[in-house]
Amino acid sequence: MSGEMKNLCVVLVGTRNPLNVGAVARAMSNFGAMELRAVRPYEKAWREAKSAVGAGELLARAKEFTDLAQAVADCSLVVGTTAVGNREMKHPLRELEEAARLIGKRMKTGRVAVLFGSEKWGLSNEDLSYCHWSMRIPTRVEHRSMNLGQAAAVVMYELGRRGRITTEAAEGPQRTQRRGEKPKRAGLKASATVKKAERGKFAEMEPVERIGEALLEALRKSGYIAARGEATAEEKLRRMLRRFLMHAADAEVFLGMVRKILWKLEEK
Amino acid sequence: MSGEMKNLCVVLVGTRNPLNVGAVARAMSNFGAMELRAVRPYEKAWREAKSAVGAGELLARAKEFTDLAQAVADCSLVVGTTAVGNREMKHPLRELEEAARLIGKRMKTGRVAVLFGSEKWGLSNEDLSYCHWSMRIPTRVEHRSMNLGQAAAVVMYELGRRGRITTEAAEGPQRTQRRGEKPKRAGLKASATVKKAERGKFAEMEPVERIGEALLEALRKSGYIAARGEATAEEKLRRMLRRFLMHAADAEVFLGMVRKILWKLEEK
Repeated sequence: MSGEMKNLCVVLVGTRNPLNVGAVARAMSNFGAMELRAVRPYEKAWREAKSAVGAGELLARAKEFTDLAQAVADCSLVVGTTAVGNREMKHPLRELEEAARLIGKRMKTGRVAVLFGSEKWGLSNEDLSYCHWSMRIPTRVEHRSMNLGQAAAVVMYELGRRGRITTEAAEGPQRTQRRGEKPKRAGLKASATVKKAERGKFAEMEPVERIGEALLEALRKSGYIAARGEATAEEKLRRMLRRFLMHAADAEVFLGMVRKILWKLEEK
Repeated sequence: MSGEMKNLCVVLVGTRNPLNVGAVARAMSNFGAMELRAVRPYEKAWREAKSAVGAGELLARAKEFTDLAQAVADCSLVVGTTAVGNREMKHPLRELEEAARLIGKRMKTGRVAVLFGSEKWGLSNEDLSYCHWSMRIPTRVEHRSMNLGQAAAVVMYELGRRGRITTEAAEGPQRTQRRGEKPKRAGLKASATVKKAERGKFAEMEPVERIGEALLEALRKSGYIAARGEATAEEKLRRMLRRFLMHAADAEVFLGMVRKILWKLEEK
């Protein structure tokens, strides 16, 4: 089993059925993904699943969050899962195999979150606005909707399979970066240069979310956003910033810029 | 979905839990395998599964057998599944991926049976004696045993995946995008949706450069950049914006934002 699976986070959003929580945990353990998080799970389901016989350490350590932004704050790539076929998607939709290839690459250098929505509704558009892109298991057109535990098993299998294929094979362009290396503070103003190795590391979601908040505020102050369009604008801005694929050091610099601009606007 | 999946027969031997029978049927339907057979199922489990709400045609048509030989009589290849690792196997054991390749080939010309044993004991040595060989899903050594419904889903997925690979050529994700196509105006404010084709296209350098200029000006006005550090800052900003990998439509939106902010700063 590939060591990179330890960088995978499975995030359940609004899960209702304790059996499904248990099934997801079991599939994770089968394929070596050990970090489970839940956002607003049905309280009873969550308690039952955690206390089930044989639930094991993985479920015992599983964490609960009240909002999705917090649940993915330390991840540099966030991927939603969907059964949707041709509904107009607001951001890129990849088939599992291609998705697993990209996730596998990213897991080499940082934490990746894979989101599963509720059994009934899947992920909402708001949930999806926290994702860089979505993926889909290629099923029969006549029967797209998979059971949650089974979908998780298939995703874990494909990620594990990828890991085995790619660990020995040629690695991507970020080969030089050393694991666990902390990015140093680097600013446009400061003399520090953004080194190649650091740049290779993608930004986690927490600074990106903060950029979004500051930029939104600046846009509000500038009159770019009309009051009535605010919710939509916020969601669209969130999606856009995730498409930028920011590197960690850049996100820091960029956040500094936006904040400075915001302060200036607030002086007025 | 590959047409060859119609030549796949899933055979459950001694299954005890109706939920598992239902889960196997669901995964089969998801991936286009429609022929389910059961050998000596627990009578009650079988009845319950067949009568479950939404069980559908696949379960309605599922046949029951009293012995395995009959259940696989019309198949030209019979493959057992096992969670066993290195226990002395009486015949060849293949990992799922390799197994799926061989099964896929065989499904082109004849019927193939894939057997799943009972939840508790798996397939007996006698059951395995009806198999040409066995296959195993590559799981973590510490946690080999998979849930039946999940194992079936993974096997169906891998067989379907194989089918697709060999029937069509692998398609690239953004193949439809045409080069040189002009991006249309799309804004956060405007109602225009960012269409798929446009989003796939990366921004040209000209709008990115304009973003850089406007942002630099805003940073100057905000006091982020000291006069003496300007040249370096400009270059660093330019590099950073290029690392963002902006899509064409996003670059346009972003330029609009930065300009609006800049105008507001200039009002002062």
